[in-house]
Amino acid sequence: MSKLFIAVTSILTGLIFSVEAQNVANVPLPTQAQLDWQNAELVAVFHYDLHVFDGKRYNQAKNRITPIEDYNIFNPTNLDTDQWIKAIKDAGFKIAILTATHETGFALYQSEVNPYSLKAVNWEEGKGDIVKDFVNSCRKYGIQPGIYIGIRWNSFYGVHDFTVQGNNEFAQNRQAHYNKMCEEMVREICSNYGDLAIVWFDGGAHGPEKGGPDVLSVFEKHQPNGIFYHNTQRADIRWGGSESGTVPYPSWSTYPFPYSHATNQEVVYKNNFQLLKEGDPNGNYFMPAMSDAPLRGYNGRHEWFWEPGDEEHIFPLENLMNMYYNSVGHNTTLIIGLTPDAEGLLPQPDVQRLEEWGDEIKRRFSTPLAATSGNGKKLTLKLKQRTDINHILLREDISKGERVRAFLLEGKTKIGWQSIFEGSVIGHKFIHDFEDIALSQIRLTIKESKGDPIIQGFEVFYIED
Amino acid sequence: MSKLFIAVTSILTGLIFSVEAQNVANVPLPTQAQLDWQNAELVAVFHYDLHVFDGKRYNQAKNRITPIEDYNIFNPTNLDTDQWIKAIKDAGFKIAILTATHETGFALYQSEVNPYSLKAVNWEEGKGDIVKDFVNSCRKYGIQPGIYIGIRWNSFYGVHDFTVQGNNEFAQNRQAHYNKMCEEMVREICSNYGDLAIVWFDGGAHGPEKGGPDVLSVFEKHQPNGIFYHNTQRADIRWGGSESGTVPYPSWSTYPFPYSHATNQEVVYKNNFQLLKEGDPNGNYFMPAMSDAPLRGYNGRHEWFWEPGDEEHIFPLENLMNMYYNSVGHNTTLIIGLTPDAEGLLPQPDVQRLEEWGDEIKRRFSTPLAATSGNGKKLTLKLKQRTDINHILLREDISKGERVRAFLLEGKTKIGWQSIFEGSVIGHKFIHDFEDIALSQIRLTIKESKGDPIIQGFEVFYIED
Repeated sequence: MSKLFIAVTSILTGLIFSVEAQNVANVPLPTQAQLDWQNAELVAVFHYDLHVFDGKRYNQAKNRITPIEDYNIFNPTNLDTDQWIKAIKDAGFKIAILTATHETGFALYQSEVNPYSLKAVNWEEGKGDIVKDFVNSCRKYGIQPGIYIGIRWNSFYGVHDFTVQGNNEFAQNRQAHYNKMCEEMVREICSNYGDLAIVWFDGGAHGPEKGGPDVLSVFEKHQPNGIFYHNTQRADIRWGGSESGTVPYPSWSTYPFPYSHATNQEVVYKNNFQLLKEGDPNGNYFMPAMSDAPLRGYNGRHEWFWEPGDEEHIFPLENLMNMYYNSVGHNTTLIIGLTPDAEGLLPQPDVQRLEEWGDEIKRRFSTPLAATSGNGKKLTLKLKQRTDINHILLREDISKGERVRAFLLEGKTKIGWQSIFEGSVIGHKFIHDFEDIALSQIRLTIKESKGDPIIQGFEVFYIED
Repeated sequence: MSKLFIAVTSILTGLIFSVEAQNVANVPLPTQAQLDWQNAELVAVFHYDLHVFDGKRYNQAKNRITPIEDYNIFNPTNLDTDQWIKAIKDAGFKIAILTATHETGFALYQSEVNPYSLKAVNWEEGKGDIVKDFVNSCRKYGIQPGIYIGIRWNSFYGVHDFTVQGNNEFAQNRQAHYNKMCEEMVREICSNYGDLAIVWFDGGAHGPEKGGPDVLSVFEKHQPNGIFYHNTQRADIRWGGSESGTVPYPSWSTYPFPYSHATNQEVVYKNNFQLLKEGDPNGNYFMPAMSDAPLRGYNGRHEWFWEPGDEEHIFPLENLMNMYYNSVGHNTTLIIGLTPDAEGLLPQPDVQRLEEWGDEIKRRFSTPLAATSGNGKKLTLKLKQRTDINHILLREDISKGERVRAFLLEGKTKIGWQSIFEGSVIGHKFIHDFEDIALSQIRLTIKESKGDPIIQGFEVFYIED
């Protein structure tokens, strides 16, 4: 053999080896941003807009089609984004998102393309920039900032479901103008505030193929490492199919399409969003579900925005823990909606509930009775003595994908091995809580996997009520 | 007779006497604002809007239905409203009007209700207020300021011919919002900048009866002494039926309706706006016509806004003098459109032409060969010797109304009295120019009048070419 042949062969072998090393299991892998997103577990989304200041109950349907009469009602007398971010930091959140624009179309920053913005108001002599304040507070507290941009509705400009009102040449020109304005707003958001964990287009963003703006290319140019959520072409995460703050089990992080629910709605919407909730273990796209709910969603209300007298609708701690089990514990990131008030502060009852919640998560999960990790089909935890157990927590190394397809959890009681739970997906985190049972050993058996399973965490707890 | 009877009779007699003294001729009388307006004779209207900065030829039809892509093109590097106002002051103008908003909807001031305003732009860090600068410059130079507000078109908000685009509940809500915005803009303009000679709604203002804003009551509250032009209910002046800067003779200042051309269009528009041009000597409303034209209206152009390379379209002096004869000399106020450029200055060629024009008006009319005034049916001017004459100027005291209905001008040549002109209205000013003729006396005979005619000026001139 010639030296050349040997050299070429070596190069080819090297290439094949390195590809295999990266993804030997042939499962979709997350980007670093998706990994960070899953690791964050708790994400806060702060909703703030003009109608926070109107003293009225929020009516989304009406709000969408009714411009705010006097935008100078926007006048937070004591705005303190540090206070917002400190509250979530203390509660264990890792990412925070702010509505730079919501359905009024009013922008909470110094936009050069959308005059309906903080430049227009008397507050801070028209120099306020809450996106900037927010991002700065996030960096100060080590929280990753993200930005929510609503472009689907704009009650001021006259946009309804992406579409400028009217159906003549004038409307077409205004649609083109609005699309350009949206693209430029995205450019401003994506280029003026540093790296963002996520840019969130609520209700999705129509792409040019549907007569909408091309926000994706702007995002990709300026935030190549962030999470894009979402348009008709791309979604890096997916809505979990409800606003209950939970998903059913199992919820796979893989999905059959590169977009979530802005396209292909017939398939996606059927059986009450079953596909969004469950994902598809054979899907070719890594796109973890999120669970989202407003903190003020208890007792018949579901409030993304602050309203006066709404404190009694803050979820009790028990509900929030239940939500945590059924979101983070079901392999999804939990997005909690928080509502700064007309003073510009996160209300104290909300701050307190967040603190209690963070404390409770720490109390429950910071001290396992036993923990291990490792590759292979079987992992066993041996306790020093038979002990009451009521929680098991599993974590896969999802940087290598969701490899586990079926698993069995068993515990050794005084009369022998007994099945505790038979599951499918583990993913970023799986939490199983059950009635107290005295066990001396706990065994995880991976019954089916794609490639070698890599268990990053296998922990057991006894958690007192 | 009792003392009481005598007292009452005296009071009644006094009332009747004073009413008669005010308007013995039973003709419509001008308000002080209308008198000032007629006395002004020359009024400048400065058009300034976003598209001055686009470097393109202005296309009104396109502009109305196409929002400006980037409003930050608005960046006058050397704005100097003193320079604008000094130019017209030197030329003899008495009133100046600025387009606070034109058809883009962009407001040249610090509006608290229209975000699409100078607050939005980077120029002057969003703190510019050209309406304020303009009004201040007017006061500095003793010019009466007026404001033009366009509410009929708004390419940004989506308003076409007063109407918000769309035909659903959303559109209705936005129409209500827009109407309120207009009312509030008028309140800002009418209450933040002192007394205004005129508030000018170009194309009129739809009133509430047509689904438009109620701008009239706002105006009446805050500018009780100004000229309102115009809506479907009221006009204190009327358009003269063309944009040629002239009206035909005769043009009466009385009119049969309290509105000009926003209502009753069939009657008003027939015979090429004959009623607007001529007025009605028996009309019950004092509403003088105006003649309007842009300074850059020569040689196939008609430009209310600055455009690059348009200097050759500035009217020559001769055309402007002709316009003066057929507007001011025909009992109307002449409105000249002026075009500050992208630098923020009235271009030097325009300034120079205005100066030449003012000088020429002074040269022609500041030194009569003879002048007189007085009441009664006949006034005669005797010259020291027979002299060539080619201009006669007449002025009524229109504070007492347009009383003269028919008059005759005669001159005494060496062969005896000869008719020079037989006319009807005199009004604020009547100028008659004719071939040189050598006269020793000039006689004005009022052949018909309502009440005693009051001739404030009867002047003759010999004006060299």
